[in-house]
Amino acid sequence: MSATDFIPASANALPRYAGVPSFMRLPHLGADDPRLAEVAIGLIGVPWDGGTTNRPGARHGPRALRDASTMIRAQHPVTGLRPFEAMTCADLGDVPPNPASVLDSLERITAFYAPLVAMGIRPLTAGGDHLVSLPVLRAVARDAPLGFIQFDSHTDLFDSYFGGEKFTHGTPFRRAVEEGLIDPKRMVQIGIRGTAYDTEDLDFARAEGIRIIRIEEVFARGIPDVMAEAREILGEAPAYLSYDIDFVDPAFAPGTGTPEVGGPTSFQAQQVLRELDGVRIAAADLVEVAPPFDNGGITAWLGASLMFEILCLMAAAPA
Amino acid sequence: MSATDFIPASANALPRYAGVPSFMRLPHLGADDPRLAEVAIGLIGVPWDGGTTNRPGARHGPRALRDASTMIRAQHPVTGLRPFEAMTCADLGDVPPNPASVLDSLERITAFYAPLVAMGIRPLTAGGDHLVSLPVLRAVARDAPLGFIQFDSHTDLFDSYFGGEKFTHGTPFRRAVEEGLIDPKRMVQIGIRGTAYDTEDLDFARAEGIRIIRIEEVFARGIPDVMAEAREILGEAPAYLSYDIDFVDPAFAPGTGTPEVGGPTSFQAQQVLRELDGVRIAAADLVEVAPPFDNGGITAWLGASLMFEILCLMAAAPA
Amino acid sequence: MSATDFIPASANALPRYAGVPSFMRLPHLGADDPRLAEVAIGLIGVPWDGGTTNRPGARHGPRALRDASTMIRAQHPVTGLRPFEAMTCADLGDVPPNPASVLDSLERITAFYAPLVAMGIRPLTAGGDHLVSLPVLRAVARDAPLGFIQFDSHTDLFDSYFGGEKFTHGTPFRRAVEEGLIDPKRMVQIGIRGTAYDTEDLDFARAEGIRIIRIEEVFARGIPDVMAEAREILGEAPAYLSYDIDFVDPAFAPGTGTPEVGGPTSFQAQQVLRELDGVRIAAADLVEVAPPFDNGGITAWLGASLMFEILCLMAAAPA
Amino acid sequence: MSATDFIPASANALPRYAGVPSFMRLPHLGADDPRLAEVAIGLIGVPWDGGTTNRPGARHGPRALRDASTMIRAQHPVTGLRPFEAMTCADLGDVPPNPASVLDSLERITAFYAPLVAMGIRPLTAGGDHLVSLPVLRAVARDAPLGFIQFDSHTDLFDSYFGGEKFTHGTPFRRAVEEGLIDPKRMVQIGIRGTAYDTEDLDFARAEGIRIIRIEEVFARGIPDVMAEAREILGEAPAYLSYDIDFVDPAFAPGTGTPEVGGPTSFQAQQVLRELDGVRIAAADLVEVAPPFDNGGITAWLGASLMFEILCLMAAAPA
Amino acid sequence: MSATDFIPASANALPRYAGVPSFMRLPHLGADDPRLAEVAIGLIGVPWDGGTTNRPGARHGPRALRDASTMIRAQHPVTGLRPFEAMTCADLGDVPPNPASVLDSLERITAFYAPLVAMGIRPLTAGGDHLVSLPVLRAVARDAPLGFIQFDSHTDLFDSYFGGEKFTHGTPFRRAVEEGLIDPKRMVQIGIRGTAYDTEDLDFARAEGIRIIRIEEVFARGIPDVMAEAREILGEAPAYLSYDIDFVDPAFAPGTGTPEVGGPTSFQAQQVLRELDGVRIAAADLVEVAPPFDNGGITAWLGASLMFEILCLMAAAPA
Amino acid sequence: MSATDFIPASANALPRYAGVPSFMRLPHLGADDPRLAEVAIGLIGVPWDGGTTNRPGARHGPRALRDASTMIRAQHPVTGLRPFEAMTCADLGDVPPNPASVLDSLERITAFYAPLVAMGIRPLTAGGDHLVSLPVLRAVARDAPLGFIQFDSHTDLFDSYFGGEKFTHGTPFRRAVEEGLIDPKRMVQIGIRGTAYDTEDLDFARAEGIRIIRIEEVFARGIPDVMAEAREILGEAPAYLSYDIDFVDPAFAPGTGTPEVGGPTSFQAQQVLRELDGVRIAAADLVEVAPPFDNGGITAWLGASLMFEILCLMAAAPA
Repeated sequence: MSATDFIPASANALPRYAGVPSFMRLPHLGADDPRLAEVAIGLIGVPWDGGTTNRPGARHGPRALRDASTMIRAQHPVTGLRPFEAMTCADLGDVPPNPASVLDSLERITAFYAPLVAMGIRPLTAGGDHLVSLPVLRAVARDAPLGFIQFDSHTDLFDSYFGGEKFTHGTPFRRAVEEGLIDPKRMVQIGIRGTAYDTEDLDFARAEGIRIIRIEEVFARGIPDVMAEAREILGEAPAYLSYDIDFVDPAFAPGTGTPEVGGPTSFQAQQVLRELDGVRIAAADLVEVAPPFDNGGITAWLGASLMFEILCLMAAAPA
Repeated sequence: MSATDFIPASANALPRYAGVPSFMRLPHLGADDPRLAEVAIGLIGVPWDGGTTNRPGARHGPRALRDASTMIRAQHPVTGLRPFEAMTCADLGDVPPNPASVLDSLERITAFYAPLVAMGIRPLTAGGDHLVSLPVLRAVARDAPLGFIQFDSHTDLFDSYFGGEKFTHGTPFRRAVEEGLIDPKRMVQIGIRGTAYDTEDLDFARAEGIRIIRIEEVFARGIPDVMAEAREILGEAPAYLSYDIDFVDPAFAPGTGTPEVGGPTSFQAQQVLRELDGVRIAAADLVEVAPPFDNGGITAWLGASLMFEILCLMAAAPA
Repeated sequence: MSATDFIPASANALPRYAGVPSFMRLPHLGADDPRLAEVAIGLIGVPWDGGTTNRPGARHGPRALRDASTMIRAQHPVTGLRPFEAMTCADLGDVPPNPASVLDSLERITAFYAPLVAMGIRPLTAGGDHLVSLPVLRAVARDAPLGFIQFDSHTDLFDSYFGGEKFTHGTPFRRAVEEGLIDPKRMVQIGIRGTAYDTEDLDFARAEGIRIIRIEEVFARGIPDVMAEAREILGEAPAYLSYDIDFVDPAFAPGTGTPEVGGPTSFQAQQVLRELDGVRIAAADLVEVAPPFDNGGITAWLGASLMFEILCLMAAAPA
Repeated sequence: MSATDFIPASANALPRYAGVPSFMRLPHLGADDPRLAEVAIGLIGVPWDGGTTNRPGARHGPRALRDASTMIRAQHPVTGLRPFEAMTCADLGDVPPNPASVLDSLERITAFYAPLVAMGIRPLTAGGDHLVSLPVLRAVARDAPLGFIQFDSHTDLFDSYFGGEKFTHGTPFRRAVEEGLIDPKRMVQIGIRGTAYDTEDLDFARAEGIRIIRIEEVFARGIPDVMAEAREILGEAPAYLSYDIDFVDPAFAPGTGTPEVGGPTSFQAQQVLRELDGVRIAAADLVEVAPPFDNGGITAWLGASLMFEILCLMAAAPA
Repeated sequence: MSATDFIPASANALPRYAGVPSFMRLPHLGADDPRLAEVAIGLIGVPWDGGTTNRPGARHGPRALRDASTMIRAQHPVTGLRPFEAMTCADLGDVPPNPASVLDSLERITAFYAPLVAMGIRPLTAGGDHLVSLPVLRAVARDAPLGFIQFDSHTDLFDSYFGGEKFTHGTPFRRAVEEGLIDPKRMVQIGIRGTAYDTEDLDFARAEGIRIIRIEEVFARGIPDVMAEAREILGEAPAYLSYDIDFVDPAFAPGTGTPEVGGPTSFQAQQVLRELDGVRIAAADLVEVAPPFDNGGITAWLGASLMFEILCLMAAAPA
Repeated sequence: MSATDFIPASANALPRYAGVPSFMRLPHLGADDPRLAEVAIGLIGVPWDGGTTNRPGARHGPRALRDASTMIRAQHPVTGLRPFEAMTCADLGDVPPNPASVLDSLERITAFYAPLVAMGIRPLTAGGDHLVSLPVLRAVARDAPLGFIQFDSHTDLFDSYFGGEKFTHGTPFRRAVEEGLIDPKRMVQIGIRGTAYDTEDLDFARAEGIRIIRIEEVFARGIPDVMAEAREILGEAPAYLSYDIDFVDPAFAPGTGTPEVGGPTSFQAQQVLRELDGVRIAAADLVEVAPPFDNGGITAWLGASLMFEILCLMAAAPA
């Protein structure tokens, strides 16, 4: 097996709209592929929106992200990093969820990730809705809590929905803190906005020491200042990066289940990631791309572009 | 309370695109409205797609159907029946489903319908996916099995999905037969087509005596002949009518989760209903309209038009 | 001036998506163009929907029809007629309507057509909503009533809307009969369907001797038989042909303001016209194409294709 | 009647996509509802675009805004205000316009608002096109001129269109100043941009003392500075707030009749409102949302979000 | 290597919207995969529209067809054939075209197919525009001319375009006849319609003995009768089947470059194929699906469904 | 011929959605029109995307730009310039490209422009893809190299594609420099971003002295500072202005073949042009608007608005 096998085909060899679409045109490895042993970063789809309480469709996210990601090229425009050469990356396929059962799906997701994590593969996940982060965290933070940085317009820190449902896309990080998967002292949420029912989530955050930076504060202080604080909070230890596409304004990312107006531009959406240079990212996800609500694929293309930014962060530094 | 209170506003008084959109511009009655006692036929939304194993979105069906239905006028074009004058009809609102739990939602739906059925109200349901029919049947067929006529491209007679899930939109009528809600000898399915995994559903149908009329047979024999057989099967006793919008060809009904090409036109979609004149319909539903996959609302408009046809059948004959 | 100046450019000289889009790539003549004297058939746009009581947008019809019509070629596929060679045809531009005044617009339209009719030009109009037919009829039938054939899902024979409005797209032909522009004994409406408020229009038709052939009758008897009757009704004298695109089923023509399901296919939409071979058509229109409700331009393309069929009827026979 | 009757259902009781869609899920009161006496702020739709000289469709605005507004929750994200608890709010339905008559519609609108204003209800209107503001002003400023703040890319201060039409969506505020409904010394227009035919509107503004702040000035000075001036102009007395969605850039608000590029983002669209804290708003409107030109509903969602911002301004201060 | 490796995953193991999308979820084999030796039927994409003279986009066809084809199941609904069990099928990927050169692309396509044909693999191609058929024919008919059956609304028999271009999507079958790849005596074209520039193509067909059955004849005689004649023309020897999606009416297949109204329904589109049972098909293609012009993916879904019909024909009989 | 013949109709005479759509409603002059002698600035369409290596559709750009441009009015909002009065402008139609041949099309384009340039007409081109600039440069810079300013997210400075193709939309400016059409010392590219395959283009730029200002630098320094440098680079001599719509962020300009996220807003897209006041522009183009990928026409409207900005630059200063 040679390293060049993991270099995506150039558009000069195969036009970008051609070929079976894997993530960023990387090789697609099945669960029993011997080349798994060489993989450092695995791109994985979780086509599931069982936690969605509003507009569904994020289950179609991985396929749309794969399709759009075939327009990604080899090199980061600012840093010059060539991630596919820096580290061995591969498309590890999709978790098979159970669309008829939330609990079974949670277990299937963790079960898919656990052996990969055990092999030392760092996962970059394409959701799915935001509940997807919880079972991934159960696999990657099994031994010790991780730092946590979240770009989102919602905190997803609620206790339950509909009279007791503990597992929805509004509750994953409450669960993750309760289960000891995230260290709340090393947790920061950026971009929060939109109307609220109450302050249950904010009260929880305050009690746990979770730092919430609302969008108004982001715009007032500027991204470099806010991100310096975020890096401080995350510190030197490994962290999980979770990026909900609804962090970005709906004009740039209409294809999502619960959009909130008043968000950042696509450039700012890239900027927050570029300011994380040097942070140790054990695992990451990009969630809530809901293709049925997209306009002309612009959300999928933004999501794929942000996945590349995240991949470069992961490829530039060890976990 | 006078009868005229249940007559929808004419477009000459309020343009059809104006006003809060209830089903066919009927009065919207809450669960504790005293006028419920006067209602003979209740139009009810079930905004839920928890049984969907493929493309979701039918949870948005009731709202889109209400919106489109405001273009419905007062009188049937062929029979001249004026259903809103023939029987007292009302919009009874939506069942509050639990998007995070299939079993809880099934119970909520039955619990919503049971008291209405007890009051003698015949329900006309707007789904939602096809699993919705099961909890409605549990309410309306509690005392005795009903005859059953289904327009669909799928039988929905499978035993389970994903290694044991008993409640999905592919299984409701297996359950309904098992639970004694439907009399399989008085059951007919029309329009079945599309590729199959196996013949488990057809084997069950054969064993139970359920009559399946595939689309090829419909086109070969013609609709009048096929529907004469269907009336024969249903007989004189009350029946449940279930209409999956994917019965119709995707050109006419693109907004659905599991379309199958090779289906009937919208005229034929009306014709099959018009041939049911005189059949006693205890309850009915129109399901699987998935607005996120619709093109310019044509599926919702077809769905609303078919709901009017069904309403006329119900208003023309006792249950 | 040579006749070849009126022959549209071939796609081999200029690709069909290229060039300023006039109707069928015909020369565009302004009101003072000396070449008007040579024109036998004038294609004219009336970008106006002031009579629309439901969903607006037909004012954008002429532009969309011009755009789509650039895909029309030179020769009829069945008869082999080459209309642009048979008669001198030209695009005479758009009537400038007054979007803020119904009455002023009606006058502007008649004033635009009157001098053209006086020059012997037979107009083929692209609407606009159906009220457009009335002011055109005032110009073309000034001297004597015309026979009238209408393809439509609505009769447009109502007396008034909104408590007294005499000029809407639901009333033009009542007015035209009252004003002596149409001979009701030589009038036939084909394809009528959809729910109704009452039978006021049908009562008027019966009283005046207007023949209405509902869609159910069309499908039951077949198009050749129905159209034979229509030809009989129209007789030998000149007639006006009015084609509302909502005659066709919404799957084929979604881009219209008041669609009604259960209509004919696009082939049948052509067939009814082809059965009019030999009828003397003094003027014609194709109305109610509403581009904001279209899906991918299929309605505009169907509308342009039907305009070509009508043009061939006009070019094959004298008025 | 208890106050809790006016609190919208939580998404935990009824998912946001469920139920008959009233504005922000508020109770829908008819014209003769006794609960009107309790209402402080009434949300009213005016589904009418009779003043539109370009692309129509704003008549469909109220329904799309109601639909989107069901995603609004209970509390303002920055101020924490809970408007539905602060003041009694209700959906008072739609004015029945006359789509076939501009003058009759103007009268119908004023007639609908007058008795509500007489009861002390402050209206928050969902248009409709911008001509809608005039008849509302006739009802709310009958006794004395109001201050006036307008967010828009056009001044709408022209004298007439099409050779004398005094009532179009380009003329309402010329009329309102002439009729003494607006005090031009307390009038400010923000965001003006786009190509022009001439300077007739600007000349009028200068002569009357109306302050126009073009978009270039907004971006150059910054929103806080501009809005401080705006507050100064409005002063302490009651004012009318009119928000044309085409104030916002077409990327954020494509669904409008006359978009102009070079506008603010959705965050800035919120910011200008938040800077009005403390201003006394007697009445307000959000106009020109034209759903047929929207992309995936993002304009309607932005419009509904801005209506919530305006509602909070109204609920936080007396008129 | 076991045969079960070529059986697509069931939706019960992996939902149909999940996973990297290969044709019908078949294994995707690269050019050097040793399993090629086992393959009987190869599904191949040719993402190229270099021959398109009107609306481009067919280059995106293979990806959209792969995506839609993941909704295909295991068994034919009428014959019960299970093609993936009957013959070893695989997705052999996409030909790498040269979007900047027509001639180079033609060579690349033939070069891709030639070794596969040499291995005895029968290709089922997903276009691409109709020019794609020519280089495929050069590979599969190298040794002897094939019979040829074409479903299309255009003959594609023209000599040249734009003053001498011999290779466009309007000329492939003229070339193929000239090059001796097709036996014109065993060639039949079905569904031809639409306006024409001239009769150059028909004259060529007559001279060569090619049978053209226009759509009017198809509808007049009925599909069984027409297809009996077609089978007669093809005879017992191997044939090439070429299916242009614009054969079907634009309501069913809007996503194509040169739609023609007046075509068959999706059921008739299946029927013509089912009537070819027993014909020996050496190779086949489905071309002209142009996703940028599609509405909600209905054309891709129809295209994938028709590819399954064709695959079953190929799997049921030897070449 | 009077000057007023070149003044576009006002919306008060003819609503903006009416009439045959020429660029900005200017008169459309054919190649042999005697009025050509009066024209100073000619707006020309090049409906061709033969250089496109990714998503096609820019061939449809000129028609969509013409359609949108009918919403442009007479006067610049900031400078007050009335370009149609300042200089005689006209729509000179579309170049007839050869969609089947890159080289022939390149020649046809140059041949179309050469005589117009010889007459002293300055061209403002609507593409088409970016390869279009090369043949236009061959006509306008035949005698001496021009300065060059490019707004774009890509440099288009590559040597070749697909193993040797010299003429694609990624290579035009390498060719133009090689051919001596552009003076690389007076060349500046602004807005470059997106992932890259390698640095071949940047190496060439460095070697030739071409100044590249990446988007990050634009945002860091601010537009006025960057544009001051650009003016410096261009100097006093005539220059060519080339504006690729993918310079703008995809939220504002989704309808393009190769979008890159992280771009400027529509206001910034105008601002860069307004900062060019006084620069001598010999010719200009606006390219890569691809309508099949547009959302609701917002890209075409932005493109038309930017063409007006460029036209004002050209009309305000001599070439």
